[in-house]
Amino acid sequence: MTMHQPMPAAAPQTDRPAPSDKALIPFVSVENMMRLVHRIGLETMLRDLAEAIEHDFRRWESFEKRERIPAHSAEGVIELMPTTDGEVYGFKYVNGHPINSRSGLQTVTAFGLLADMHTGYPVLLSEMTILTALRTAAMSALAARHLAPEGSKVMAVIGNGAQCEFQCLAFRALLGIEEVRLWDIDPAATDKAVRNLRNRDLRVIPCASAEEAILGAQIVTTVTADKKFATILSDNMVGPGIHINAVGGDSPGKTELAREILLRSDIFVEYPPQTRIEGEIQQLPPDHPVTELWEVIAGRKPGRRSRDAITLFDSVGFAIEDFSALVYVRARAMETGLYDRLDMIADPDDPRDLFGMLMRARP
Amino acid sequence: MTMHQPMPAAAPQTDRPAPSDKALIPFVSVENMMRLVHRIGLETMLRDLAEAIEHDFRRWESFEKRERIPAHSAEGVIELMPTTDGEVYGFKYVNGHPINSRSGLQTVTAFGLLADMHTGYPVLLSEMTILTALRTAAMSALAARHLAPEGSKVMAVIGNGAQCEFQCLAFRALLGIEEVRLWDIDPAATDKAVRNLRNRDLRVIPCASAEEAILGAQIVTTVTADKKFATILSDNMVGPGIHINAVGGDSPGKTELAREILLRSDIFVEYPPQTRIEGEIQQLPPDHPVTELWEVIAGRKPGRRSRDAITLFDSVGFAIEDFSALVYVRARAMETGLYDRLDMIADPDDPRDLFGMLMRARP
Repeated sequence: MTMHQPMPAAAPQTDRPAPSDKALIPFVSVENMMRLVHRIGLETMLRDLAEAIEHDFRRWESFEKRERIPAHSAEGVIELMPTTDGEVYGFKYVNGHPINSRSGLQTVTAFGLLADMHTGYPVLLSEMTILTALRTAAMSALAARHLAPEGSKVMAVIGNGAQCEFQCLAFRALLGIEEVRLWDIDPAATDKAVRNLRNRDLRVIPCASAEEAILGAQIVTTVTADKKFATILSDNMVGPGIHINAVGGDSPGKTELAREILLRSDIFVEYPPQTRIEGEIQQLPPDHPVTELWEVIAGRKPGRRSRDAITLFDSVGFAIEDFSALVYVRARAMETGLYDRLDMIADPDDPRDLFGMLMRARP
Repeated sequence: MTMHQPMPAAAPQTDRPAPSDKALIPFVSVENMMRLVHRIGLETMLRDLAEAIEHDFRRWESFEKRERIPAHSAEGVIELMPTTDGEVYGFKYVNGHPINSRSGLQTVTAFGLLADMHTGYPVLLSEMTILTALRTAAMSALAARHLAPEGSKVMAVIGNGAQCEFQCLAFRALLGIEEVRLWDIDPAATDKAVRNLRNRDLRVIPCASAEEAILGAQIVTTVTADKKFATILSDNMVGPGIHINAVGGDSPGKTELAREILLRSDIFVEYPPQTRIEGEIQQLPPDHPVTELWEVIAGRKPGRRSRDAITLFDSVGFAIEDFSALVYVRARAMETGLYDRLDMIADPDDPRDLFGMLMRARP
């Protein structure tokens, strides 16, 4: 059970029978998500999630797609990210409030839902703060498997916040990265990441600058959180044969790369209408050519074209990735029993008799 | 507690400390929503909800508004309905699957969420199947208070499904309706409504046809569920001085009224861009004049102009109504303690150390 505190006031019992199966929605709490990760194993789960996403990217055309639906405030954004493959419906609620960490709150929190398209009934509610961290890292590594130079062994990670360690381990698990070079504007963040990555079979090098971090790296991951135009990588820092995994620039007015880098790169994106609003390419004209990553994954378009090319995965996160992750978690939760059941859907015996059900519950 | 069944498998305990307050989201289950309705009293709650909606309709311009976001299937639709007033964010998940009742499922199920716009953290998760039934009825009665002929005492209700009794009681509570005349294509639905409305200080007249139901009625409520163009009311059935409360026509291809009735009516809607897609007025040209109900409520536009006018509230349900209802329920749930707390948001001590929190939870 995930209820850690008693209900503040006792409530009278009614003689309403226990809700039926249809009324009880499987719920994966934070506690159960953490148990699930440890049951499966973190790196296995990262590989599984990449495989689940790859499977769905191959059938990209079966999904209904749209930009996510934002609500902006001065401090951040709340977004809904729905999609469906016609059988299953999924959406994620996610916020991005960079200022939160100053008051001890997460920058990004999330939860998600799956439902049956044929009945509209929810079939899973799940925490997604942890799951989003995992799927984002799995997505990055999956893209890099198609775009990074062959035999990449060294990755720089600029920005050592909540997503950093997940990125490092996903790239280790999926690409065989051996060395990660970390830099953050706040040395305490780097220290935290170094500590967390001990005994993970990775050489972890804390660096004193972004310039030092990218030395010898075939892959550069940028994953900073400030909600503003920033230049984490300037033009002269990026040489030929680099893969850039740009994770942090993911909402209007929030970018990480110098425009000149974009002009020298082959750019790969998830869903162009969303990325043109939110990604690094918001700095470019709306007709600047980009390749949709699913086409590379499905074998329809080339990924990396030459050893010297600069490839850029302009990642903003797309609804289908969350869908894949939720479908995966649902299956594993059912297998392991690592879920609770929420009394979330009213379920009268006679579906037209909602009123009667309510009245029969009178204490 | 709302967990009616044990967790299917035992899970190992970890030494993770109990989540903090920020991580535990207040959750109003179906059980607690029913307790809340009985604690407050059904008619009081209908009046309170109408007042809450009226309050928010008066400040209509402070809200971000958009059409709801649908995902259609052959059987029905799943929709997300977000809005915010800049301080609080709310959304509802709702489905409409008319075919569901044949397999013992609800046509409409729903749940909703409130969050803090400044942090993005959820502050309430609530069942909304029952709450939607209540707020829809409260909205109908609120509109009728501004539009129906003065001194209306008799209402016809065409369609006696899950929403019927809520409509009857809301119109009794808010307008003083004394007689309801019920008709449904399925006599069993009418029987159920008659049974449920016993001892409610209402004259309840089951009728053999729609024509009989509207005899002597000043208000005609249509609330059928079929997902297709239908003609519940034909032109010759509607005389002068009637208020039509059209609740059932609420998605593309789903209407209840003959087009000729619309052409003779003063039409009032919630949010025109959404109603033109979903409401009765989808039968009319996109520039057919309509009045936004909030302008009537705020005193900026007249409602009923004459004793003989036909007024039509072309109701489809709008996000602000759910927002109002959720804000109301949140306050009442906090007062009464009728809620649980869900472990839905990961909350590491150091917000950048999500990974460390996950690792420390290793069994």
